[in-house]
Formats: sequence, structure tokens, C-alpha cells
Amino acid sequence: MYNHSLEEILEVHKNGKIDITLTREVNSIDDLRKIYTPGVAKVCQLIEEKPETVNDYTMIGNTVCIATNGTAVLGLGDIGVRPSMPVMEGKSVILKKMGGVSCMPILIDSKDADYFVEALVAISPTFSAIMLEDIGAPLCFEIEEKLQQRVDMPVFHDDQHGTAVVVLAALIRALKLTDKSKEDVKVVMNGAGAAGIAICKLLVASGFKNIILCDRAGALVKGRSGMNSYKSMIAGMTNKDNFEGSLAEALNGADVFIGISAANVVSPEMVKSMNSDPIVLALANPVPEIEPPIAKEAGAAVALDGKMVNNALCFPGLMRGALDAQAHVISDQMKIEAAVAIADMCKDDEVVPDFMDPTLHEKVAAAVRKVAV
Amino acid sequence: MYNHSLEEILEVHKNGKIDITLTREVNSIDDLRKIYTPGVAKVCQLIEEKPETVNDYTMIGNTVCIATNGTAVLGLGDIGVRPSMPVMEGKSVILKKMGGVSCMPILIDSKDADYFVEALVAISPTFSAIMLEDIGAPLCFEIEEKLQQRVDMPVFHDDQHGTAVVVLAALIRALKLTDKSKEDVKVVMNGAGAAGIAICKLLVASGFKNIILCDRAGALVKGRSGMNSYKSMIAGMTNKDNFEGSLAEALNGADVFIGISAANVVSPEMVKSMNSDPIVLALANPVPEIEPPIAKEAGAAVALDGKMVNNALCFPGLMRGALDAQAHVISDQMKIEAAVAIADMCKDDEVVPDFMDPTLHEKVAAAVRKVAV
Repeated sequence: MYNHSLEEILEVHKNGKIDITLTREVNSIDDLRKIYTPGVAKVCQLIEEKPETVNDYTMIGNTVCIATNGTAVLGLGDIGVRPSMPVMEGKSVILKKMGGVSCMPILIDSKDADYFVEALVAISPTFSAIMLEDIGAPLCFEIEEKLQQRVDMPVFHDDQHGTAVVVLAALIRALKLTDKSKEDVKVVMNGAGAAGIAICKLLVASGFKNIILCDRAGALVKGRSGMNSYKSMIAGMTNKDNFEGSLAEALNGADVFIGISAANVVSPEMVKSMNSDPIVLALANPVPEIEPPIAKEAGAAVALDGKMVNNALCFPGLMRGALDAQAHVISDQMKIEAAVAIADMCKDDEVVPDFMDPTLHEKVAAAVRKVAV
Repeated sequence: MYNHSLEEILEVHKNGKIDITLTREVNSIDDLRKIYTPGVAKVCQLIEEKPETVNDYTMIGNTVCIATNGTAVLGLGDIGVRPSMPVMEGKSVILKKMGGVSCMPILIDSKDADYFVEALVAISPTFSAIMLEDIGAPLCFEIEEKLQQRVDMPVFHDDQHGTAVVVLAALIRALKLTDKSKEDVKVVMNGAGAAGIAICKLLVASGFKNIILCDRAGALVKGRSGMNSYKSMIAGMTNKDNFEGSLAEALNGADVFIGISAANVVSPEMVKSMNSDPIVLALANPVPEIEPPIAKEAGAAVALDGKMVNNALCFPGLMRGALDAQAHVISDQMKIEAAVAIADMCKDDEVVPDFMDPTLHEKVAAAVRKVAV
């Protein structure tokens, strides 16, 4: 398993994992006169006359902002904005390596949605898309909605939508392996934070008919007390039979469990109470709702944790495809096609494909490009 | 002279001249587990506990924001924010190549100082310094002042202070070559925009006693009408004899002319009316106040234009030194020492040193580091 020493880890983070570097040689005054004054003036004038050429002659067309306020960093929570930088740089590394996308982290030390949004609107001409990262719920919803209304470029909160895409991908694949169909399965989810709500919405958009989302107080159901507006919205679009009860009760007879909640909240008995060949996606970080080997022992046909069902399967290709298509938003259709492409890359009895395979990210990009808006 | 074709120029700007790239190899899941989850969490926690380690384990300590609103781009004027990107990237290229400083352009499409400042304050945790670039006067003064009050890191408007440093450097050297002293010379400047006012302030700070700054209406003098607050401030600290009159009248008997104004506003006759061995720095872009060969024919001992007295002599070393010292501001003393270091690098009858010499930028950085605050 995982056993790097602190020294080994710090070594690869020294002075940062990304840098802003030259793409051109500058070895003479003559080089400089092309790159800088006076030559550069002609490029500026060209872009002024033909604004669309900005993508041809600057970095903007391939550059994405990764914005955070450091309030929901990995399993660490609200650690502050500068301590979150290593994660932002890590994300940038993956996007570059797997998708060829250039990403600049932007740290904004604010929990006020309007302040956060206004800063990103202000600097948005620098970029072709904005990824939101590690921002706690429900603030992340408000920021995403308001920001997308203000900028004419994709706004993508990976913790929501990247997670939703890879969960959908794993589910498409798991249903195929267990010979079940999305129209028929009963899906029970636990965790109504950013990821839970986004997964739920994408499953509905992609045709799942029977979903119950639980939070700590049990199933979300129309009229239940103690729900914020996002939970009320979910209650209105899921749980058609108005089931009231706990997670354990909801899981009785379910085909699929998706957890984006907390460590060890699912017992072997709960898995045993599910329908035949149950699918268990226990994605809580760093400790899952139930360890996959234990879930399998209890009868799960498929059991995965968050290390296996990782956003990184999705976001490099998705952003690559969105930039290539000069998309203005990331639509549900783009997310669904990305999930289908990820599922299609699985071999044999794999439920998720190999992240290191560059073909995976190319296929995702191609699928997204095709339906981009 | 300069004769690159548009095609040659566009070629070196294709897809941008800078990029955000990896500093680490990522070739396996094991690499990823150090760079990203779960390993990265330990680095985040270290920075949370010891905030000063953020400079050791992220890019922040070496990263500068280059911010513009595209309102005063080179000789092109107010061309808009995205058309200015090739210049911002060019600046980033020079800072990286000569100073090893990583610079991210940030484009903000606003002429409102408070809006511009607030956006930069919001994203400032990402950076260790902020350079302001190609922002028109007097907006640039207001932005610089307000921003420096709000952030605990250097704010440096190169069009003002970089220009001031290289002019001071050239002047120190020219005085030495002509055996004149800063305490005795009469300096006449033309152009009371951002650069003119900054040069004037730095000359006063470094000990020049007799300066007259002119604008289109002639010498700035206490009580003159039609002066903004910045011009009034300059009138109060220069022109001790309360000279009233035109540029031509002011130049009579002057030792030094510094122009940061407009093409061809100085005639050979005006140079002839100056004191013996006059020094002419005609820095208007792209066409100088008087062409250096013509100034020399009219008797100038030293005559340079803006291509020769270039900010790029200063800003890479200055920013390198400021970052190395973890400076909180760029003080007058840091600028003056940078100018002295630049002047010291001149050989034989050079008035400015060779920009391509890496030793120049190292010496400037060392000088700045020594007096950084």
C-alpha cells in the first residue's frame, strides 16, 4: 500500500510542482525584438482587429484558472487558502500531463460568494475556463451558479461534477457487469454535500429512475424539516415513493450504494440487506463507508473506494475537450458522454479504466468535443 | 535596423510565449500518490502549521502577478485587455530568462481603480509580488497607492519605477562621463505622465537639486492652473526658482534633457541652447523627442533614445532581489541601488550596459537584496 516518508513527499513538492516557463528561446537582442518591443506591437494590433486570434497568439486559449478558498481541501477541511496550494498545483500537474491543459491556481481568501465571484469575473479575460476546487458546500453551489451567469466560458466545480462523471462511469460499467439497467435499479446514496448532490443530479439527467439520497437525518423526502434549498430540490426530483427512514432502512433491497459521506457508516449487514449482486461505491475520503474487501465478503458484486473511483479519470479529458471546442459551458450531455467514454475504456472485469493510459483521456476529450456547446 | 516580417513575428508568438508546466515527472500511480492524494495532504498540513514553509513547497515564493487593464500598451494606447496579452507574456519571458522570476499575466478589463485593486487584493495570496503594467496615468497612481496599502508584498509599476531606475542609471553614468555632478546639474524634463512623474521623484530622492518638469503647457510651477494633484505635488518639490515658461525656454542653459513625451518636440537649436556637454535622453516611443544622431550633431555629449534606455535593464534583477529578500515593498533605496548597479556595469564609454549579460541582472539583484525592506 501507500508508505512514502514525509521526506520523500516533501522532496517532490520543493519549490512547487508547476512553473511558468518560456516556450521560446531568447538568446539575442534580435530574438527580443520579435518577442517584445517593437515586434510584439504587431501581434497586439492583430488581436485588437481580430479578437478571435487571441487563441492563436497567446496562452489564453489553453489556459484554465483553478480557483479555491481552501475551505474543503481533500479530507482536511477548512485549512486556509495558502495551505491548499499544493493540492491546486497537483491538479495543475495532472491536467497538463494527461490533458495538455495549462492551469494557474488562483487563491482567494474569502467565504463570501459575491466577493469570490467578482474577483474571478474581474480576472476572467486571462482564461478560457474556470475550475472551482475544494470549496465547501453550500457556498460552492452559489459561487458556481453566479459565476457561470457572469462569464462566457465553462465554470466547472470538479468536486461536484468531476466526481459525478466518474461515479456515473463506474456505475455504467458496474451495471453492465452485473447485467442490471439504470431504469430498473434502486440507487441509495449517502451524503448530501457538494458531490452527493451533483452525482444525484447527473444520475437523474442520465436516466436513473429510482434514487434515494440520505443525509445524517436519513432520506431526503419532500416536506422533511432541516433541509437547505439544494436538499429540497433533490427531494423534489428523487425518492418518488416518498420513503421516510434511515440509510440502513433505505438500503434494504437496493441495487446500488453510493457513499460520499463518512468513514464506516455502512455495515456488512447493510450490504447483505441489499438486492442480489449489489454494487457498492464507498467513496468517503480517506476512509470509505465500508472497505471494499469487507463489502465483497458481505456479497457485493462490485465494491470500490474513492482511490479507485477518482475524478482524475475525468477532468483532464473533459477540460481538454471543452477547450478544443471553445465551449461556453459544461453541459450535462458533455458530462454524460465523458462518463460513457470512461466506461468504454474498461477491459475484462475492470469497473474503472487505467488512469495512466493516455488513450483514456484522448477518448474522453473526443467524446466531450463532439457534444460541446 | 529592425525589419522582421509579420510572419516571422507571428511565428514566435504562436500559442503564447509562456506556459504553465510541470517541474516533476509523473510516470506512475506511485508518482501521483506523492504529488497528489494522499501524499499532498502532508504538505498542506505542514504549511497550515508553519505558514512560512509555503515558499519552500509551492510556487508562490517565486511567482509574480503581472496585472494590466490594457489602457496604455507600448506606443499603442488603450487597445483593450486581451490584445495586451502578448506584451504581458513578453514581460514574463524577460523576467524568467534574466531573473528566474515566474510571472503570470492577469488581465482585468476595468478602468475603475477600486474594482481593479479589489480584484488584485482578492487573488494576492497566490503571489509574492504584483507588477502593474501598461496602465494609463493618472489611474496607475491611484491603483498603485491603494493596492500597496492593502497587500503585504511589493507592488511595482514598471512603466513608472522601472523607467525611473534605468533613467537614473543612465544619468549616473552620463554625469560620470561628462564630469558633472547631480548636485549641480540643471535637469529639464518633458512629459508629466506616469513615467515622467516617477523619474522626477526618484531624481529628487537620489539627490538632484535642480529639476524642471514640463508638460504641454510648459514648466510645472507652484500655483500654475491646469495641474492635477500629481503635477501639483511635483511642482512643489522641483523648480525651486519658480521658473515659468516653455520647454524651449527651460532648456536654455540646462545640462540634462529627459523626454518621456512625444516625437520630435526637441530641435537641434534647443540642444545648442543647453550648457556645455549636454546629456539628452530622448525616450518617447516609438519616435524620440530628437533622434540621438541629430542631438549629437547639435553638440550633445551623450544622446540616447528609449530603445537604448530600456526598463528591461532593471526589472528582472530588481524583482529577483525583492523576492529573494522576501521584501514587502520596493523602496526608493532599492531603486537607487539598482540604478547604481546598472551604471556600474557599463564599460568604456557605454552609458547603459549590455542587457543580454546575465551578470548585469545578478548584480542588480544583489544590490537590491542588500537594502531590501
